[in-house]
Amino acid sequence: MLIAYSAWPEIDARLKTTKTVVVPIGSNEQHGPTGLLGTDWMCPEIIAHAAEKADDSLVVAPTFNIGMAQHHLAFAGTISLRPSTFMAAITDWVSSLSRHGFERIYFLNGHGGNVATIEATFSELYAEWSFVEEEPPYVLKLRNWWDLPGVNGLCNAIFPTGHGMHATPSEIAVTQAAYPDRIKSAEYSPKIAPSGPIRDALDYRARFPDGRIGSDPGQASPEKGQRIIDAAVPALLKDVAAFADEVLPGR
Amino acid sequence: MLIAYSAWPEIDARLKTTKTVVVPIGSNEQHGPTGLLGTDWMCPEIIAHAAEKADDSLVVAPTFNIGMAQHHLAFAGTISLRPSTFMAAITDWVSSLSRHGFERIYFLNGHGGNVATIEATFSELYAEWSFVEEEPPYVLKLRNWWDLPGVNGLCNAIFPTGHGMHATPSEIAVTQAAYPDRIKSAEYSPKIAPSGPIRDALDYRARFPDGRIGSDPGQASPEKGQRIIDAAVPALLKDVAAFADEVLPGR
Amino acid sequence: MLIAYSAWPEIDARLKTTKTVVVPIGSNEQHGPTGLLGTDWMCPEIIAHAAEKADDSLVVAPTFNIGMAQHHLAFAGTISLRPSTFMAAITDWVSSLSRHGFERIYFLNGHGGNVATIEATFSELYAEWSFVEEEPPYVLKLRNWWDLPGVNGLCNAIFPTGHGMHATPSEIAVTQAAYPDRIKSAEYSPKIAPSGPIRDALDYRARFPDGRIGSDPGQASPEKGQRIIDAAVPALLKDVAAFADEVLPGR
Amino acid sequence: MLIAYSAWPEIDARLKTTKTVVVPIGSNEQHGPTGLLGTDWMCPEIIAHAAEKADDSLVVAPTFNIGMAQHHLAFAGTISLRPSTFMAAITDWVSSLSRHGFERIYFLNGHGGNVATIEATFSELYAEWSFVEEEPPYVLKLRNWWDLPGVNGLCNAIFPTGHGMHATPSEIAVTQAAYPDRIKSAEYSPKIAPSGPIRDALDYRARFPDGRIGSDPGQASPEKGQRIIDAAVPALLKDVAAFADEVLPGR
Amino acid sequence: MLIAYSAWPEIDARLKTTKTVVVPIGSNEQHGPTGLLGTDWMCPEIIAHAAEKADDSLVVAPTFNIGMAQHHLAFAGTISLRPSTFMAAITDWVSSLSRHGFERIYFLNGHGGNVATIEATFSELYAEWSFVEEEPPYVLKLRNWWDLPGVNGLCNAIFPTGHGMHATPSEIAVTQAAYPDRIKSAEYSPKIAPSGPIRDALDYRARFPDGRIGSDPGQASPEKGQRIIDAAVPALLKDVAAFADEVLPGR
Amino acid sequence: MLIAYSAWPEIDARLKTTKTVVVPIGSNEQHGPTGLLGTDWMCPEIIAHAAEKADDSLVVAPTFNIGMAQHHLAFAGTISLRPSTFMAAITDWVSSLSRHGFERIYFLNGHGGNVATIEATFSELYAEWSFVEEEPPYVLKLRNWWDLPGVNGLCNAIFPTGHGMHATPSEIAVTQAAYPDRIKSAEYSPKIAPSGPIRDALDYRARFPDGRIGSDPGQASPEKGQRIIDAAVPALLKDVAAFADEVLPGR
Repeated sequence: MLIAYSAWPEIDARLKTTKTVVVPIGSNEQHGPTGLLGTDWMCPEIIAHAAEKADDSLVVAPTFNIGMAQHHLAFAGTISLRPSTFMAAITDWVSSLSRHGFERIYFLNGHGGNVATIEATFSELYAEWSFVEEEPPYVLKLRNWWDLPGVNGLCNAIFPTGHGMHATPSEIAVTQAAYPDRIKSAEYSPKIAPSGPIRDALDYRARFPDGRIGSDPGQASPEKGQRIIDAAVPALLKDVAAFADEVLPGR
Repeated sequence: MLIAYSAWPEIDARLKTTKTVVVPIGSNEQHGPTGLLGTDWMCPEIIAHAAEKADDSLVVAPTFNIGMAQHHLAFAGTISLRPSTFMAAITDWVSSLSRHGFERIYFLNGHGGNVATIEATFSELYAEWSFVEEEPPYVLKLRNWWDLPGVNGLCNAIFPTGHGMHATPSEIAVTQAAYPDRIKSAEYSPKIAPSGPIRDALDYRARFPDGRIGSDPGQASPEKGQRIIDAAVPALLKDVAAFADEVLPGR
Repeated sequence: MLIAYSAWPEIDARLKTTKTVVVPIGSNEQHGPTGLLGTDWMCPEIIAHAAEKADDSLVVAPTFNIGMAQHHLAFAGTISLRPSTFMAAITDWVSSLSRHGFERIYFLNGHGGNVATIEATFSELYAEWSFVEEEPPYVLKLRNWWDLPGVNGLCNAIFPTGHGMHATPSEIAVTQAAYPDRIKSAEYSPKIAPSGPIRDALDYRARFPDGRIGSDPGQASPEKGQRIIDAAVPALLKDVAAFADEVLPGR
Repeated sequence: MLIAYSAWPEIDARLKTTKTVVVPIGSNEQHGPTGLLGTDWMCPEIIAHAAEKADDSLVVAPTFNIGMAQHHLAFAGTISLRPSTFMAAITDWVSSLSRHGFERIYFLNGHGGNVATIEATFSELYAEWSFVEEEPPYVLKLRNWWDLPGVNGLCNAIFPTGHGMHATPSEIAVTQAAYPDRIKSAEYSPKIAPSGPIRDALDYRARFPDGRIGSDPGQASPEKGQRIIDAAVPALLKDVAAFADEVLPGR
Repeated sequence: MLIAYSAWPEIDARLKTTKTVVVPIGSNEQHGPTGLLGTDWMCPEIIAHAAEKADDSLVVAPTFNIGMAQHHLAFAGTISLRPSTFMAAITDWVSSLSRHGFERIYFLNGHGGNVATIEATFSELYAEWSFVEEEPPYVLKLRNWWDLPGVNGLCNAIFPTGHGMHATPSEIAVTQAAYPDRIKSAEYSPKIAPSGPIRDALDYRARFPDGRIGSDPGQASPEKGQRIIDAAVPALLKDVAAFADEVLPGR
Repeated sequence: MLIAYSAWPEIDARLKTTKTVVVPIGSNEQHGPTGLLGTDWMCPEIIAHAAEKADDSLVVAPTFNIGMAQHHLAFAGTISLRPSTFMAAITDWVSSLSRHGFERIYFLNGHGGNVATIEATFSELYAEWSFVEEEPPYVLKLRNWWDLPGVNGLCNAIFPTGHGMHATPSEIAVTQAAYPDRIKSAEYSPKIAPSGPIRDALDYRARFPDGRIGSDPGQASPEKGQRIIDAAVPALLKDVAAFADEVLPGR
C-alpha cells in the first residue's frame, strides 16, 4: 500500500493489521556527468515501490526526497537541507506517522551522506524519552538499500572495478532500469574517478571535478539495474518483516 | 527541464539562459473518503510536469511533497511539518537554488494550509537582507495552482455546487486524470460536506467527520480533471514567463 | 477590564465569569510622510480600549506593539521582529494567558503584514496538540480591525478613492481621532501612491519612495477617524461575544 | 522625540544629529494586591516620556512591555516571555534600530527579573562580532530606573522601612503619580511581606502568597511618586548624555 | 564522591541517601599574561574536589569547563559558548542529573561572565513548569566560589590593593596552589590594570591590552592560594548542606 | 602545549608556527559495573596529554567531556547532551579555535555514540560555506582513539575474546593505567555481556542490564592499558602531523 496513492480510510483499515511503515529517503544531488540528480531518492523509491507491488502488505510512505548534500552544492541542481533542518523534518515525519499508530518506522536510505544526520535524529528523538524515563511509542531503523542482505555483494560482483562511492554504476543502473528514457552518456575522464575525503562544497569540487568519487558509471545498464532491483526487493521484504516481528525486551 | 531527471551539466548549461525555477509544493494529507493522500503535491506536480512537457524551457525542481497539515493529523496517513520546520526546509531549498544562480523562484502550491507559512518564510528570508540594507539575490513568488488566471473560474463553472474548500472535486479530478487506476469511490454522507473554521486536529475531525470541507468530490472525473490541467498549463507558462521578465525597480 | 491597569486579584475574580481575552496586536513601522510609526498598534489599541470603556466586561491584554515589518526597514523608526521571533513571542503570550484560564484568545490585529505569521503561529501552537491527539486548552482567533463587520464598508464609503493598502486614510484618521495633537501634514506626491508587490526592504523603498502604497492619507481627519472608531467598537464587542459563545463540537 | 508618535521623515532627520535611542523595557506581571500589572513597563515609560518632554532631543522608542516573569505566572494577568524568546525579541529590536543608524542603544529597565536575560542577550549579540573579529555597529547599555544616580537613595529616604524587592512602594507610587485614577487599596497582611529566593511560579506563590516580596506598598502616594519621577528625569537625561558622548577606545 | 571517577552502581547507591550534587562550572579564557586559560574552571574544580576529599558525602559532577567568554575572544586560547548554546548545555546537564534523582543541583561557578546566562537558564528551565502549573523536580542554585561565606573577605584581606575583577591574584593563587609547576611570571605594565565596561572582544582588547581588569596578579603565590582554598572548602560544605536541607514551602 | 595550562601569550606565540589543534572529546556515561563514568573523555585526554608530553609541539585543547549518551541515561551518573545541543557546542568550540587562527581542528574521540552527531556537525558547519560558495577557514577531522593506526589491532590481540562494544577491557584498561587508585572490581554475570541494537534508555537497560555490551572488562589491567597508551601516542602524533601537512586541492 502506497500511502500517497491511498485514501485515509484505507490507511486506517490497514493499521489494524500492521504497525510498520517504510519511508524511502534520499537526496537530490549531482551524480556525475550522466547520473540523474534524483538518483538517491529514486533508488529507494524504485525498490520500495517494487516491493510493494510484489507484496501489497508493505506500507510505503511518500518519498523523502531532499537530504543532506551540502558537499555537492558546487554542482548545479543539488538541493540540500542543513543537518539541523533535516533533523527537524525527520522528527515531524516520525511524529506524524507515530500519531497514526505506526510503531516501527523503517527508513530505506539512498544517500550515504544522510546516514550521520539520520542517526543523530534518532538519538534526538529517543532522547526526549530517555530524559524522562519513558518508552518511546516507536522503534526506528535505518537501512541503506545497498546494505540489504545480498545487494552489496551482487553490486560488487557485477562491477568488480570502478564501483566507487558516488555516482556508482549500481545506483545509475537502478535508475536506468526505472527510467530508460532518461539514460545519458558522456566521456568519463578519467575513466575511474579519484577518491578522497568529503568536506565542504568547494573542496569537493576541487577534488572531484565532474562529481564522481571512485566510480566508472559507464558500466551501468538497465539490465544490470534490474538485476539489482530484483535482488533488493525480496531482501527488503524480508528485512522489514524481521523488523516488524522483532521482540522488544522488557515490554 | 526536470531537475531531478537531469544531470548537473544540463542544469549548468541551462542556467546560462534562464534564472527562473518552478517548485511544485504541496502536502500529504487526507482528502476525504476517496481523495488520494498525495492530492496536494500531485496537483502542482502534474501541472508543472505537463507544462514542462509543453515547453521544455521551463525548469522544474523536484516536488516539495510535505507541507503544513497539522489540522489533518486525526486522519491516518497525513504527514505534517510544523510551521517552523516547514520554514527551515523552504529556506534551505531557496538557499540551494539561489546558490546555483536561480534568481527567481516560483512556488506552485497545491495546499491552502501552506500559504501562511510559505509567506512567513518569504518574510523570514527577506528579513535577513532587510536588516542589513542589502538586496537579496532572489525574488520569491507563491502561486496556488487554482489561482492561475482562468483556472478558478473554470473549476467553478464545471462544479457550480459542492466545490467547497477541501477534497474539492477539482483537485480530485486532476489526480484522476493523472492516475486513473487510483480512482476510488464512496457514498458521501452528506453529499456536500459541512463548512467551518480550521483549528487543531481533533476539532477538525469533530467538525468534518470524513475529512471533506464543503465539497462533493463525487462530481470529479478524469475528463474534467484533464480540462482543468489543460487550462492550467498555458496559464502557468504565461505566469512564469511574466515573473521571469518582471523588471525590478532600482536595479 | 484592562489587564495592565488592574491588579492580579481583579483578573482572578474576573476569570470566574469570563474565559475570553482580547489582545491588540500591531506593528511599529513607517506610515508614509505623515502617519505615526505606531499607527498599526495604536489602531487596535484605540478600538479595544474604547470598547472596554463601553463595556467593562471586555478583558483587554496589554498591546503587542511590534510585529512583522521587515519590508518597512528601509524607513527610519521601523522596528520589526523576524517571523520566527514573532512566532515565539506570540506562543509565550498564549501560554501565559492560557495558564491563567483564558480559553479563548482573540487577537485584534492592526497590520496586514502580521497576518501570515500569526496564522502560522496558530498552526504551530495547535500542532503541539494535533501530534499527540489532545485538545488544546485554548481557541485562537485573528481579526483585523478593518474586517470587523461593517468597518471596511464604512472606510470605503468615506474614502471612495485613494484608500490604498498602506498608510491608508482610515488608519491615519483613527490615530488622528485619538492623538489630535500628533497630526502631521505633508505634500503628497503623487497624491495617490503607487501599488505593487511587497518583498524586501530595498525593493519596497524603490517601489514606494515615501512609504505609502496606493493611498492618499491627506483625506484623513479626526472626525472621520472617530466615525470609524464608533463603528468598530460595537462590531468588536459583538464579534468577541460571538467568539466567547461559540459552541465547540465534540466537547 | 517619541518614535511611535512621529513619522519616519522626522526620525530620518533626527538621525543626522543623534545616534542614541532609549528603549523603555519592563514586564507585565502581578504587583501584589494593589499594584498594576503593568507597573514594570509603565515606570520606565513614565520616566522616559517625562524626560523627552523636558528635553525633546531625547529619542525614545516604543515601550518593550513584556519581559521575563516566569516566576509570577501563578498570579493572574502575568504575561511572560521565556528567556530564549526574550533574547530573540531584543535581538530584533537592536537589529532594527541599528539598521537605521542608532549606534548607542540604552535600555531603561523596570524589572529586576529582566536583568540576567538582557545581559545574556547583549553577550549573544556581541558574540556574533567577537567570533569574527569585527566591531559591532552598536554599543548597548542597560540601566534600571532605580539605579539612575540619586534615585535609589531617594526611594530609601522616602520609604526607610518596607521598601522590599517586589511591589515596592516606590514603583507603586510612580504609577500612582501617572495614573491617579487607577489607585487601588487593600489590607496588607502582613504589613511587610516576607522575603526569600525566587524560583518557579508555584514555589513563588507558596512563599509570597499575595505576590509582594519584602514590601509595604501601602506607603505609596502619587506625591511621593512624583518626587521620584522628578529625580529620575534629570538623572536619565544626564546618564544618556554621558552614554552618547562616551569615547570608545581604539576607534 | 566524584561522579566521573565512580561507576554507576556507586552513584545509584549514593542516591538513596543524597539528592544533592555540585557542578563545578567555569570557562576557558585568557587570564592575563600569566594566568592559566583554564583558571575559571580549575578554581571551582579545585575547591569542589578538595571539599569532596574532606567529606566524601559530597557528590561532585564532572567539571563544566567552557562558559560564556565572548569578550575574551580577542586573546588566543579562549573558547566560548554563545549564551544560547550555554543555556542548551546547562539544560541538558540538569535534565540528566534530574533524571537520576538529583533534586538539588548546586553550580559552583568560577567565572563572573557566566552569571547572567546561568540565571537566565534557570529561568528558562523553571518556565517550562511555571507555564503549566507544575512543580519542577529540581531546585537550582548558583554560587560563585568567591561568594562563599568568608572567602571574599579573606581575598580582600590578602590582597588589599590590585585585586581587581579579572585575572585577580586570588584566582591566580588558587591555581598556583593546585598546579605549582605551571606558575608563570611576567612584567606587568601597568602594575594594576585599568578598569572599565565589558562589551565585545575588540572593545575589550582595546581597553585591557594584556587581558587583566583592575588586577595585579603578581601578588599571587601558592601559599596564598592554599589559604583561600582552605577557607573555601568548609564554606562550600556548609553552604551545600544548607541547600540540601532547605525546607521548600508548600510541599 | 596544553591550552588550559598555558597563558594566552604562549598560545599566541605558538600560532606563528602551528595552525593545528587537537580536541579530546568524549562522554560521561556508565561503563558497566566497574568502569568509570568518565571513561570516554578520560581515554582521549590520557592519550592526547601523553602525546603532548612526548612532543610539546602538539597543541591540545581542554577536554570536551560531555557528549551524546542518551541511551545510557537509565544508569545513574550519565550526563548527556541532546544531539542538537552537542552540535551547537561543537560549533562554538570550532568558531572559537578558528577565530584564533587554528585552521585544522582534530577531534580525538572516545565515544562511539558521538560519531554521528560530530559528523553531522561538521556538515552543518561546512554547509554555511557551501551555501555561499566560500571556503571555510578550517578543516575538521574526527578520529576515534581506537581507530588510530595499529591500536585496534593491538586491542584485539590483547583481548581476543570479550572485547565487545561498550565498557570494553581496552578502555577500562586505559583508565586503570592512568588512575590506578580508582580501579574497581565486580562479579560480571554473564562474563561476556550480550549484544544488540542501541535505541532509547529504557530499551538499552532492558537489553544490557549492567550496562556492558558484548564485553568482559574483567580482563583489563593497568599494564595492558599502558601498552595501549604507548601504541596510541606515536600513532596520534603521526596522524596529527599528516593532517597538519595535508595539501588541500585548489588553494
